Amino acid sequence: METQAMEQVSQVISPEQFLAHWQGHRSLTRRVIEAFPEKDFFEFSIGGMRTFAQLTMELLAIGAPGIREIATGNSEKLDEHFDHKNSKANILKKWDEDTEEINKYWAQVPVERFQQHLKLFGQYEGTGTSQIFYFIDNEIHHRGQGYVYLRALGIEPPFFWER
Amino acid sequence: METQAMEQVSQVISPEQFLAHWQGHRSLTRRVIEAFPEKDFFEFSIGGMRTFAQLTMELLAIGAPGIREIATGNSEKLDEHFDHKNSKANILKKWDEDTEEINKYWAQVPVERFQQHLKLFGQYEGTGTSQIFYFIDNEIHHRGQGYVYLRALGIEPPFFWER
Repeated sequence: METQAMEQVSQVISPEQFLAHWQGHRSLTRRVIEAFPEKDFFEFSIGGMRTFAQLTMELLAIGAPGIREIATGNSEKLDEHFDHKNSKANILKKWDEDTEEINKYWAQVPVERFQQHLKLFGQYEGTGTSQIFYFIDNEIHHRGQGYVYLRALGIEPPFFWER
Repeated sequence: METQAMEQVSQVISPEQFLAHWQGHRSLTRRVIEAFPEKDFFEFSIGGMRTFAQLTMELLAIGAPGIREIATGNSEKLDEHFDHKNSKANILKKWDEDTEEINKYWAQVPVERFQQHLKLFGQYEGTGTSQIFYFIDNEIHHRGQGYVYLRALGIEPPFFWER
């Protein structure tokens, strides 16, 4: 037990902490979605980039399906579309459902999976941890772009450090 | 030894992998800096935000000093200024020096430090790992903003997934 406790202390991050880190970012992204006026969420963009709605659809395509595949080993399809009817409320509802889905499948990921080499969505290769880092980092990256959209629209985005 | 090997396999991420992850992001940020025309790097912005030069100065203020404080315990000052003479080359030179500085001090961080509660720069509180996550995530966040600046300038940014 003493050895186990020491190992607990001397790791960079536990699976539970890693999940909390991800969900903290997802909570901030949710508030960025909320900060967009309905119309701008679906229509505004800069420099020919995607709208924040399209970026959000990419995040939804990756997060819950990605962790489900990491947990189960069953290949998922990368699907950036669902019938949201141009409604932010529908997208936020899906966001919240996926929050639960991520918690559920995260609890089923065996700890050795983080260091195993995986191929996700039939094409992306890397360790479990590097895959999850990609999910999180890609979300931060696109959310940072959303901050510029909000600023360009004259809207104050939520504080980056509030999770 | 067998137990040790198992512990090695069953952790989310090792300190060496965590460093490689950070440096991979820093390498991409370096290429984003390079992609900016000299003048736009120091002058262009959207919606009243900081220029990418100013954002880069923030990243330089945090990264190497932050890991130095985590390694040594000596309080650092958050200093977002040095005399770069409006030269991207001077900033890239500092970026590269800091790459070495980060490698050097990372090697001195005791593994238990990642889970210890720390106060950095005299004010920011959290575990060692949460501090380093902040360094990395803040860089991804601002770099994502740099991508919008580049797109608005009609410049193709480097691929996000190339590190």
